[in-house]
Amino acid sequence: MKPAVCLLSGGLDSATCLALAGRDGFACYALTFDYGQRHRAELDAAANVAASLGAAKHLVVPINLRLFGGSALTDNLEVPKTGVTAGIPITYVPARNTVFLALALAWAEVLSSSDIFIGVNAVDYSGYPDCRPEFIEAFEHMAQLATKSGVEARTRIQIHTPLSHLSKAQIIQLGQTLGLDFRLTHSCYDPDANGRPCGLCDSCRLRLKGFREAALQDPLDYIHS
Amino acid sequence: MKPAVCLLSGGLDSATCLALAGRDGFACYALTFDYGQRHRAELDAAANVAASLGAAKHLVVPINLRLFGGSALTDNLEVPKTGVTAGIPITYVPARNTVFLALALAWAEVLSSSDIFIGVNAVDYSGYPDCRPEFIEAFEHMAQLATKSGVEARTRIQIHTPLSHLSKAQIIQLGQTLGLDFRLTHSCYDPDANGRPCGLCDSCRLRLKGFREAALQDPLDYIHS
Repeated sequence: MKPAVCLLSGGLDSATCLALAGRDGFACYALTFDYGQRHRAELDAAANVAASLGAAKHLVVPINLRLFGGSALTDNLEVPKTGVTAGIPITYVPARNTVFLALALAWAEVLSSSDIFIGVNAVDYSGYPDCRPEFIEAFEHMAQLATKSGVEARTRIQIHTPLSHLSKAQIIQLGQTLGLDFRLTHSCYDPDANGRPCGLCDSCRLRLKGFREAALQDPLDYIHS
Repeated sequence: MKPAVCLLSGGLDSATCLALAGRDGFACYALTFDYGQRHRAELDAAANVAASLGAAKHLVVPINLRLFGGSALTDNLEVPKTGVTAGIPITYVPARNTVFLALALAWAEVLSSSDIFIGVNAVDYSGYPDCRPEFIEAFEHMAQLATKSGVEARTRIQIHTPLSHLSKAQIIQLGQTLGLDFRLTHSCYDPDANGRPCGLCDSCRLRLKGFREAALQDPLDYIHS
């Protein structure tokens, strides 16, 4: 089985993406970052998802993006709860996907893998610039020039984004088809101390809307729903 | 003064690069990584260099690249000491400059800075793919698409590589002109417990050759010279 590094936040999208990489025959090396997010529920979800989907390995890498500051997800800024608005929101973490993909590339190179999976989505997404296809293409091009395998062996580095053009409802339907246990996933930006999702932040809203449109029941127990 | 993020390893090149950014009127935010390198001399050197050159701030970010393995600089592999050879050497750290630049980009975005300095060199270098101009150009292009400032404000992100086309001797002469205190810098891949440079690894060899060609005296006290 070919090895692939799969970025795994513990959310719905990355979990579906991991399930898909596994179905496509890759040995999945799931990679999660402990980046100073304000809650641990995401990390627990990632570990549970990786185990349930039979990842070859799951690595949690600490990288303290709080040192830089600048996001509601890592700082003590208020997470917006009044609905999804236009533009790049305050929950944006500066250069997050660039940092995460760079570290995925480092692990891929050590594993002699040329395949990286990331569950970015350009349809029902939160407006982050580093989720767009043009960003992913530019990263892929850069990765080819950055690495020993890309330069010496001319192995084609591929950043797989199988969810990029799916709606949230389609992602949920795909996850369902792949047997993903949605109870293990975590999407909320502002859960309570027990990891219970708020139901009001952008991420909860997009998830709930997706389930409604997919005509499926979200098994999570929301504070507000 | 415009802020700039300056990658600083504590070596000759990054120190000269920082001195140059300061001379060119930037407020320098020096960024060093504690990436599991086998010795601490580099980190001490970085702190001393940043202080002596009047950096606006110096941040040391822990990022454990040892978790991935795969390099003589982070693993327990032997550092080669028989001379510089062709090809990418074992001291190559997978995707290191991609990871470092990605994190520099994150800090730059928080600082509202669009300028990053990195002391890569494509002449007297160790053959690492991520030191070449084509890699830097690809990173710059990707950075433009990755960030809120690049996408919303259309600020041009610049990765400055002022040393790229200089020989090691020219870099040393430049450092001398800028008043850099070479005693504070550290280049060796395999120093002794007191941080004393070996004089035999690729990095020491390139440095010593540079000083000879610049007709200057390297003030460091080498174990072998």
